[in-house]
Amino acid sequence: MSASPNLVSEYACFGGTVGFYSHHSTSCNGEMKFSVYQPPQAKLQSVPILYFLSGLTCTEENFMVKAGAQQFAAKYGLMLVVPDTSPRNTGIAGEDADWDFGTGAGFYVDATVAPWRAHYRMYSYVVDELPGLIAAHFPGIPERQGIFGHSMGGHGALVCALRNRDRYLSVSAFAPIVAPMRCPWGEKAFTNYLGSDRETWRAYDASELVRTAPYNRPILIDQGTTDRFLANQLFPEIFEQACAEMEQSLTLRMQAGYDHSYYFIATFMEEHIRHHAAALCASA
Amino acid sequence: MSASPNLVSEYACFGGTVGFYSHHSTSCNGEMKFSVYQPPQAKLQSVPILYFLSGLTCTEENFMVKAGAQQFAAKYGLMLVVPDTSPRNTGIAGEDADWDFGTGAGFYVDATVAPWRAHYRMYSYVVDELPGLIAAHFPGIPERQGIFGHSMGGHGALVCALRNRDRYLSVSAFAPIVAPMRCPWGEKAFTNYLGSDRETWRAYDASELVRTAPYNRPILIDQGTTDRFLANQLFPEIFEQACAEMEQSLTLRMQAGYDHSYYFIATFMEEHIRHHAAALCASA
Repeated sequence: MSASPNLVSEYACFGGTVGFYSHHSTSCNGEMKFSVYQPPQAKLQSVPILYFLSGLTCTEENFMVKAGAQQFAAKYGLMLVVPDTSPRNTGIAGEDADWDFGTGAGFYVDATVAPWRAHYRMYSYVVDELPGLIAAHFPGIPERQGIFGHSMGGHGALVCALRNRDRYLSVSAFAPIVAPMRCPWGEKAFTNYLGSDRETWRAYDASELVRTAPYNRPILIDQGTTDRFLANQLFPEIFEQACAEMEQSLTLRMQAGYDHSYYFIATFMEEHIRHHAAALCASA
Repeated sequence: MSASPNLVSEYACFGGTVGFYSHHSTSCNGEMKFSVYQPPQAKLQSVPILYFLSGLTCTEENFMVKAGAQQFAAKYGLMLVVPDTSPRNTGIAGEDADWDFGTGAGFYVDATVAPWRAHYRMYSYVVDELPGLIAAHFPGIPERQGIFGHSMGGHGALVCALRNRDRYLSVSAFAPIVAPMRCPWGEKAFTNYLGSDRETWRAYDASELVRTAPYNRPILIDQGTTDRFLANQLFPEIFEQACAEMEQSLTLRMQAGYDHSYYFIATFMEEHIRHHAAALCASA
């Protein structure tokens, strides 16, 4: 069994607790941080687990502070688990140079290029290591887990679910990067983490993955129409087209007047939590 | 009519808008900032106004980002108005020296001592100037306003309501400083802003004010039992005793295990908004 994570701080919230943790990650070869919301139901029994992957520059804290998710997790009895968005303080030169690459921008891939591959293995961390840690030390039901995320984290959530249909019973995203192979953020990250062979990028592009491995459950995406990244980075129409061709069930809602912020995320949080609860909390 | 405030930024949120504004304040003799949540109902008609006064170190942003209030303001059709917690960049020597005095710590008083009296006039700003600005430029109903706040802002809300029963139809507070004349934060602020004559402090101490001017409506206060400031700064029992002696209706709820954070505030936000809506949105 993995060593217990260190509890950094803890707060009562909607009858449950928000906790911030650190631990040594074998995937990332260094310290990683994450946060967990344990709903009141978790005091008595194990509960389903919903992972949230955050966007560029975020830490494990932003979602817990800004998204307003705890009240709905408490209502439905879901545990929320939120990893940091990258390793930090690895000592890799240039790690902190850009806001959209390196620190705070792990892009949920396993880097294959030096020097990043020594630490930047967020895909394995999110899909394997962190769920193992949660299963060992928190009152969650590993067989009932879902995943969602925002922007870079929406990309991550879709990739994790599409590559692991058996592990994630539900997926949704806010303003996700659905075609990273074709946008500047993704091209920069994949070139540096994965190298110049674009064939290797397909394993981390939701619009490519859905063509090879459709997800056998409905996908929910909310996207603001005045999001300043919509036209140049996000391209929901590419994913929508791929889903249509594959007959993948997708609810893509273009939300008029909403931007890329947590004010947008908070507005539609209840419906996303309900989407996941319908799959995770079914009277099973 | 006052000049229009400058719109700094605006975000769609729960069908309405969060806006951040700056303007020249005559009360504070310099620039002041505030935020406003306009619920969807305000697009069609004027709505009641609920002021929130924030705690030490906060700006006009913390509440809008962390409190999760917009969803309930949208539900009940209330406008939320949140001023900054002090003037800033006034040039007064020592303004930024302490976290609990000066910048971010206006304590909602009108300073009478030089050099602070030239700018630190948050009581007049909150009670007179800002409501006038809101009445002139936003779709609110000035005759239907309530006020609430947290910590230093809970003190401010109680003082504003107790001194202006005709202007505030409802009041509540999260972990308020109810006896500032008797706690270190209050003694430091009042000594510096108001001088050493403690008689002048009574006008800004809720536990004193309620003895002279009881509020003719119920007061709601939530207080976490593990709040690290409870024993040395907050003293809800002093206010409770004064209310009991005056037969002032008070619901003081000691919330087991909750601290002083926005996780605590968010947990009980819905009930506070409902408390205000019951007074402000009555079928009148």
